[in-house]
Amino acid sequence: MKKLFAFLFVFSVFSLTIHAQSAEEAIRKNSEEMQASIAAGDYEKFGSFFADDVIFKLAGQKPIEGRAAVTIAHKPMTEQGMRLVVVTQEVIEFNGYAHEFGEYEIYAKNGQKVDEGNYSTVWKEIDGEWKIYRDVVSSSIAAK
Amino acid sequence: MKKLFAFLFVFSVFSLTIHAQSAEEAIRKNSEEMQASIAAGDYEKFGSFFADDVIFKLAGQKPIEGRAAVTIAHKPMTEQGMRLVVVTQEVIEFNGYAHEFGEYEIYAKNGQKVDEGNYSTVWKEIDGEWKIYRDVVSSSIAAK
Repeated sequence: MKKLFAFLFVFSVFSLTIHAQSAEEAIRKNSEEMQASIAAGDYEKFGSFFADDVIFKLAGQKPIEGRAAVTIAHKPMTEQGMRLVVVTQEVIEFNGYAHEFGEYEIYAKNGQKVDEGNYSTVWKEIDGEWKIYRDVVSSSIAAK
Repeated sequence: MKKLFAFLFVFSVFSLTIHAQSAEEAIRKNSEEMQASIAAGDYEKFGSFFADDVIFKLAGQKPIEGRAAVTIAHKPMTEQGMRLVVVTQEVIEFNGYAHEFGEYEIYAKNGQKVDEGNYSTVWKEIDGEWKIYRDVVSSSIAAK
């Protein structure tokens, strides 16, 4: 019995460690792929990183609810050849969720910066994949 | 042994339920007290709801780091007799942390709305009290 408990304890700590690493790694990888999707003009791929029941809040707009709506909202960006740059500053990992804190910049096709600011993202692990569940984007340029 | 496991299971579910209720309740109560503090001109009381190592991001400003800096940053608001209205839309609770999603409005002393927008707050439970640990404020008025 003692051995079983010892095994369970070690296994739990091991699982938590593995889990903790993979969440941040998965989120950073997702962010890279999301930037690449925008650069490639593939707004549908970009949309695939959001949860079905996402709530996405851009500065000065009504909340955008649901993956389909968030996906369509990014179509103009890709059509105009914009580029998104995301810098993850911190990932705090919870059980099945994670909070990301970061900065973003958006560049027009001609290289001019058209927006920059901060974001706060709650990721949710759904069927082993990390999806954006709640997102607040705070534009700094608009606020100046 | 079976009984012990059954007890532990029931106890765990019970603890989680209790814990889940108290985090959201505590956060809603804190938000009420924070609004009251601003209305009363007490920026130091307002500041007491932030963690020592908070990072607070207002739209268009550099991140404000640490409770002392966040507290001082709210001094002008109270001196000018402003009023803060906060509407908590959702609290997702994790172990020792919680994520709050909401809307805010700020009114000048004469009753005019001077700002409104969304916020995303990560609360951290520190010595049994819920403190603001990460905060992104997204101004909607500034972005229009």
